[in-house]
Amino acid sequence: MSEAIDFRVPVLGECTVDSPIILSHILGDNLANYVDDEARVVYTVDVSASEREYCVDESELLQKAGPRERLFFTPARVHAGVVTCGGLCPGLNDVIRALTRCLWYHYGVRSISGIPFGYHGLLPESTAEVIRLDPDSVDDIHKIGGTCLGSSRGGGERTGEIVDSLERMGITMLFCIGGDGTQKGALAIAGEIERRGLQIAIVGIPKTIDNDLSFIQKSFGFETAVSIASGAVTSAHTEAHSAINGVGLVKLMGRDSGFIAAHTALACHEANFVLIPEVPFELDGPNGLLRHLRDRLERSNHAVIVVAEGAGQDLVSAEGTDASGNRLYGDIGLYLRDRIARYSRDEGIHINLKYIDPSYIIRSGVAVPTDSVYCSRLGNNAVHAAMAGKTKVLISLVNDHFVHVPIRCAVGVRNTIDPESSFWRDVVEATQQPFLMVNDRE
Amino acid sequence: MSEAIDFRVPVLGECTVDSPIILSHILGDNLANYVDDEARVVYTVDVSASEREYCVDESELLQKAGPRERLFFTPARVHAGVVTCGGLCPGLNDVIRALTRCLWYHYGVRSISGIPFGYHGLLPESTAEVIRLDPDSVDDIHKIGGTCLGSSRGGGERTGEIVDSLERMGITMLFCIGGDGTQKGALAIAGEIERRGLQIAIVGIPKTIDNDLSFIQKSFGFETAVSIASGAVTSAHTEAHSAINGVGLVKLMGRDSGFIAAHTALACHEANFVLIPEVPFELDGPNGLLRHLRDRLERSNHAVIVVAEGAGQDLVSAEGTDASGNRLYGDIGLYLRDRIARYSRDEGIHINLKYIDPSYIIRSGVAVPTDSVYCSRLGNNAVHAAMAGKTKVLISLVNDHFVHVPIRCAVGVRNTIDPESSFWRDVVEATQQPFLMVNDRE
Amino acid sequence: MSEAIDFRVPVLGECTVDSPIILSHILGDNLANYVDDEARVVYTVDVSASEREYCVDESELLQKAGPRERLFFTPARVHAGVVTCGGLCPGLNDVIRALTRCLWYHYGVRSISGIPFGYHGLLPESTAEVIRLDPDSVDDIHKIGGTCLGSSRGGGERTGEIVDSLERMGITMLFCIGGDGTQKGALAIAGEIERRGLQIAIVGIPKTIDNDLSFIQKSFGFETAVSIASGAVTSAHTEAHSAINGVGLVKLMGRDSGFIAAHTALACHEANFVLIPEVPFELDGPNGLLRHLRDRLERSNHAVIVVAEGAGQDLVSAEGTDASGNRLYGDIGLYLRDRIARYSRDEGIHINLKYIDPSYIIRSGVAVPTDSVYCSRLGNNAVHAAMAGKTKVLISLVNDHFVHVPIRCAVGVRNTIDPESSFWRDVVEATQQPFLMVNDRE
Amino acid sequence: MSEAIDFRVPVLGECTVDSPIILSHILGDNLANYVDDEARVVYTVDVSASEREYCVDESELLQKAGPRERLFFTPARVHAGVVTCGGLCPGLNDVIRALTRCLWYHYGVRSISGIPFGYHGLLPESTAEVIRLDPDSVDDIHKIGGTCLGSSRGGGERTGEIVDSLERMGITMLFCIGGDGTQKGALAIAGEIERRGLQIAIVGIPKTIDNDLSFIQKSFGFETAVSIASGAVTSAHTEAHSAINGVGLVKLMGRDSGFIAAHTALACHEANFVLIPEVPFELDGPNGLLRHLRDRLERSNHAVIVVAEGAGQDLVSAEGTDASGNRLYGDIGLYLRDRIARYSRDEGIHINLKYIDPSYIIRSGVAVPTDSVYCSRLGNNAVHAAMAGKTKVLISLVNDHFVHVPIRCAVGVRNTIDPESSFWRDVVEATQQPFLMVNDRE
Repeated sequence: MSEAIDFRVPVLGECTVDSPIILSHILGDNLANYVDDEARVVYTVDVSASEREYCVDESELLQKAGPRERLFFTPARVHAGVVTCGGLCPGLNDVIRALTRCLWYHYGVRSISGIPFGYHGLLPESTAEVIRLDPDSVDDIHKIGGTCLGSSRGGGERTGEIVDSLERMGITMLFCIGGDGTQKGALAIAGEIERRGLQIAIVGIPKTIDNDLSFIQKSFGFETAVSIASGAVTSAHTEAHSAINGVGLVKLMGRDSGFIAAHTALACHEANFVLIPEVPFELDGPNGLLRHLRDRLERSNHAVIVVAEGAGQDLVSAEGTDASGNRLYGDIGLYLRDRIARYSRDEGIHINLKYIDPSYIIRSGVAVPTDSVYCSRLGNNAVHAAMAGKTKVLISLVNDHFVHVPIRCAVGVRNTIDPESSFWRDVVEATQQPFLMVNDRE
Repeated sequence: MSEAIDFRVPVLGECTVDSPIILSHILGDNLANYVDDEARVVYTVDVSASEREYCVDESELLQKAGPRERLFFTPARVHAGVVTCGGLCPGLNDVIRALTRCLWYHYGVRSISGIPFGYHGLLPESTAEVIRLDPDSVDDIHKIGGTCLGSSRGGGERTGEIVDSLERMGITMLFCIGGDGTQKGALAIAGEIERRGLQIAIVGIPKTIDNDLSFIQKSFGFETAVSIASGAVTSAHTEAHSAINGVGLVKLMGRDSGFIAAHTALACHEANFVLIPEVPFELDGPNGLLRHLRDRLERSNHAVIVVAEGAGQDLVSAEGTDASGNRLYGDIGLYLRDRIARYSRDEGIHINLKYIDPSYIIRSGVAVPTDSVYCSRLGNNAVHAAMAGKTKVLISLVNDHFVHVPIRCAVGVRNTIDPESSFWRDVVEATQQPFLMVNDRE
Repeated sequence: MSEAIDFRVPVLGECTVDSPIILSHILGDNLANYVDDEARVVYTVDVSASEREYCVDESELLQKAGPRERLFFTPARVHAGVVTCGGLCPGLNDVIRALTRCLWYHYGVRSISGIPFGYHGLLPESTAEVIRLDPDSVDDIHKIGGTCLGSSRGGGERTGEIVDSLERMGITMLFCIGGDGTQKGALAIAGEIERRGLQIAIVGIPKTIDNDLSFIQKSFGFETAVSIASGAVTSAHTEAHSAINGVGLVKLMGRDSGFIAAHTALACHEANFVLIPEVPFELDGPNGLLRHLRDRLERSNHAVIVVAEGAGQDLVSAEGTDASGNRLYGDIGLYLRDRIARYSRDEGIHINLKYIDPSYIIRSGVAVPTDSVYCSRLGNNAVHAAMAGKTKVLISLVNDHFVHVPIRCAVGVRNTIDPESSFWRDVVEATQQPFLMVNDRE
Repeated sequence: MSEAIDFRVPVLGECTVDSPIILSHILGDNLANYVDDEARVVYTVDVSASEREYCVDESELLQKAGPRERLFFTPARVHAGVVTCGGLCPGLNDVIRALTRCLWYHYGVRSISGIPFGYHGLLPESTAEVIRLDPDSVDDIHKIGGTCLGSSRGGGERTGEIVDSLERMGITMLFCIGGDGTQKGALAIAGEIERRGLQIAIVGIPKTIDNDLSFIQKSFGFETAVSIASGAVTSAHTEAHSAINGVGLVKLMGRDSGFIAAHTALACHEANFVLIPEVPFELDGPNGLLRHLRDRLERSNHAVIVVAEGAGQDLVSAEGTDASGNRLYGDIGLYLRDRIARYSRDEGIHINLKYIDPSYIIRSGVAVPTDSVYCSRLGNNAVHAAMAGKTKVLISLVNDHFVHVPIRCAVGVRNTIDPESSFWRDVVEATQQPFLMVNDRE
């Protein structure tokens, strides 16, 4: 990540309105302070001592999020919209709750509309009603998984119709909670808004249970996902351990990035093989997975394999894309299940294979408390950003500081596990699998 | 934190032994690499854009942790000791497990001794037997709370006797898992080792459920603590909400730092007042807690107060220190309970007060999966550090990188919540309590 | 239980209204059938083979609960009231939800009023508003602990004023969810209703987290209570096990009956002493608890004591009654804590005592699924009973059948653990404590 | 169940050995008593008041389980074996633990052998070693799911070889933990033992996660299963509720009996259709499931279907049997998924179907505390039975009393949900599905 990236944040215009939030300007008075547009956070912290002195240019610094002293929008005239898109992720309701409460209690905004079922709720054919959000209606939603607004895939590409709807509804700021496709849609919507000369802020809250968005230290819901996934791997281990040559196979989420699979393997200490999209592997041959699995069974009589859904896509074939524009993937879980079964028949080894796919149980979970804290703070900072007229930005956590990341920086390039990183090293050390299960390395 | 701190790491001597861990030197070959002593991490990331260019000196960079290509110790001659000190904290067994497995599987070390009941297990009068650690004995310990070695307070000040024991046992590296007092003890032990010209590495793993050690981004067990504490606050809320003028009062851990209390309040969304050591408050007067509580009851008929044990120590009196040398604290929980009861009698308001102190239930919990991941990685990195002859260092996580922090930097100065930080601002916004509950501010 | 009890059920009058619920009369058509008033359940199943033939008289049989073909009330004219009294208990909201849904969906009743804060909500001075209950308002309440109606102690003795309120509101059936005091109140209210010649059905749903109501096989919330209490005992065990001479002391609910304490000890396998109200014990002397505790510490270095709040009341003194009319109890938990501490000082044994009182955390819990099933069915059967004009009855589970128990049978006599039963034998076998810890037995 | 069943219990011979367990003979001395062979429990409690007097013959009474004053076996000469067979079920380790501890602590038995991997561990070709059981080795096993002995299907039909092994090992009592097939095997083994004139007690502990064994009020692990299944149904509901026309489909265990599916539906309140083996249903036609599903979606936009694996077996075809001799079943879950998908395409209704199969996660769970209590007591009573020379018996709970049920009574006839029972009525009322979804009823 050493090439310079331009982290400058787009704004709708000058901030001329006094914030109704009363904070301090003085350090040392024990009162929280307004955050200045000049406050920044260093992105790259990974350096070599041999450089003697480490310097970064201003453009490589990320702008800190937080409440500004002056706002772009007059709170009384604000009509905020909230939309949740794509697959479920623990914490969605926590974010919706935080947005609503921050707008209502801290800025006094009284018009907050929940868009039903993703971008589709802004299309002319939508029949579902807009949901009025206020502190009462969101009070207990964080105790329930999913999204109280409903969600759907796609729709964001119909930019013109969506901006028509925003204009008709009189929305002045739209909070787009979703992943890569959603944020691309948000950027296109913001572009159309600009073309029409409208003053509508578009602020994204990155949602990616796979943890695969760039410039996002940790995506919300991720800890919850790992927590639930760990339970599933423990189940697989229990099944495998209680049977003669038991093999537990667990498919976890992770299309382009194996973060959930790898963290879960580290967390539950019971996986013997972790297969992720970032690290290619082969099934056959002396250094292939099947041979290593067989060796493991001979040594220990049981084995657990965790596979991310995007792993080994060279082995399975699939075509087309879903409504979010994501490429459809072959089902590596079922493929492995069948290949292991066939291998055991061919080799005359009796095995007991148990296949677990806990994806929907994970996605629909209620956020664990630390995810809940994170969601609250994401929501608050998104409101502060929009009120100050920031647009085309995501709220993100970088080096433990909340920052504004321009959407254009975050979309397109995935965050993945570096197979040479200390993290992956720790995973491989925990599972004791070979670093690479390929036969020919020239 | 702008004054320069010297982060240079003490070592026992030159590394001349080849590591038995086979890693790569090459970037881009998809294999994990050895970590170089020159690899560093920037500590301070919080800057102002007005500086145009942000530079730090080499001495202000933290050394990255990880496996070195050359070791100080010959694995076959290593006898490792592990000691857990002070109060319980979720994740202790995870750390013990990781240390044992990394030593055994990755370095081939076969002599690993668990010291029973803290530093006391190294004192001549100890009757408890040393516990032999190996992968079998630690296989399932992470599923159980507490520490399989036992723990105790104090003892670390008897430096001479402890080093006598280490010499007698032939221990070459000691892993000290504990908080501020433990690490001070570790530093003193390392000093005595140096005076005697011995070659014993002392590596600390910081344990502080309060999250109050400096240069530690997040202490292990903290997320688990917040998770269990959130349940207790939800109980208090349920009790308060189901009664006429119900008041739930929950005392949480946090002697010098209110991190658990503040995170819990943010996580469970149900606290109306959070009292922490960092922010003074008064009980009486028009801006005192009691008056605000009364107003809250009049508005909403119920209220929840979360108080960190170290909050309001000016209100309660106590003397002396415990065996760890920590100052004894007055019991602010019981004090508040009694003062609120008296206030309600005096004012003729009938209230239903329920007091919950979940401290032991929190401390003894099993680590949640993300804490478990963290503990594994702390343990691995501690072993890598000791094998390379680093001493008088803590393993820490800073800006999401594992680093070596000299113990002398970390002890003495507590990590606390900055009342002017965005974090505390988000807490206050969530509870809707006044920023300061004091009457006279001149 | 060998003396004859008269289980005949009072009714308001003849049933002449056809039920809107369509069921079958025919056995074997795979359709559920109406329950006949003649359907009965044998109460006493515990007999001796030497009797050759075992016979019971009709009056000793309990009437089965369930939907009747003919009702006393015309659904369209029903106004149902629901009141929750006394301390919290897991499952209260589940019962309220079941009552509401059964009335609404199955009988078409549209007037359902939740009385706020127990019987106090029916007193003239109450300012809290009656809560309208319908399927929407109760849809998610079972996911939250406590009672959505609020609760309070006492008030039921003001019979005249309460019946005035019922008349004024036009209530035709009142569901009283509460324990012994509440049901006594319900009986008195029903008596006053009778005196005034009104036709209001009074149906009780027994709530007793202590499981101490007679003729109730298992009280709702009890399994949840044991589940949460088990976690607290595990915490005590972890603390005790991790310390030198660690003693964990847990106080659990159980004023007259030690069911929660005893079940919890059996469930978590980690208690060494269980003290319950039904079995007297002494502290001092060669066969007293303190001596046995000391022996245990000498053998095993740690010990866990579980004490029901009503145990050892001869040792602690207290006076007066609470608002429910329950005798106030001395705090045996704190008393034991202090006596053990003094004993250890006197005897010169250093111990680490950790005292845990998880009562509020237990009471406020969300019902576990099997409790939730039980609550649903209690609620349904209560509605069926009231619609058929049964009054002064409790819904109960006896020998796995839902039955009508006349309130007059159930109040007054507590259900307790028989120290000579197989259940207590299994508890004592599990803890390995002496059957009796008293010194003089002549 | 009105025809007379002979509940008399087979014994190996006369009891002449004094029990080492010291209990009382006297009622009223607050000490637990020995249980007499004459103590009985009434089985059928469901009667009609019109009978005036209800009488049962002695042979229809079940013998009470519990410790006898005189034993058949001399404890010092006992060698006990424990075997777990068939699929996993929560609580297996709890039972193994209770058996071991009761034998060891209460009878002083020191030879306890765990048979590895079911009956296969007693076959000559088994290479797995017998596991020595003692209080240390079983101390923490109840905190882990599965069985520490391993399990497998089948093998029990090789009676001669198994009895050869028992003779060779010198086993005097074998505890067989398993379901219908296992208990049939146990009966055959006991027959062979009898033919050879050996004195080996065979005592079964019924294990059936489906709750489908006759004369077993509630099988162990069932509450845990319902608890975990409820979470899966909540996930399905969350997914369905958050999508446009979302349909959640959950397949649960239950080959011949729909207890888990039905209890789960009642517990989580979120299922709209429950399909069980006991109640036939059709997919097509005006009263078929698909039409009702469509109506539900039109009304509410989402729906949840819970299906037991044995439901609708007339719709799916399968052949053969598994190693336990159970008939193989067609996969009704996948069949429904495909049929619903096809129906939605044919009818032009866009639906979002999410299919969840949590079976392995349920089976491998750790027992909830109330299951744990039950398992402890089953284990204790099994030991008491075997020591007193009872054989060919199961330990069961009937009307809340532990009893001896002759294995011959319990095998062969399944326990199923009576579609005309109050329980199924409550389920149907909760889901609001039609009582029967078939088109032609003549």
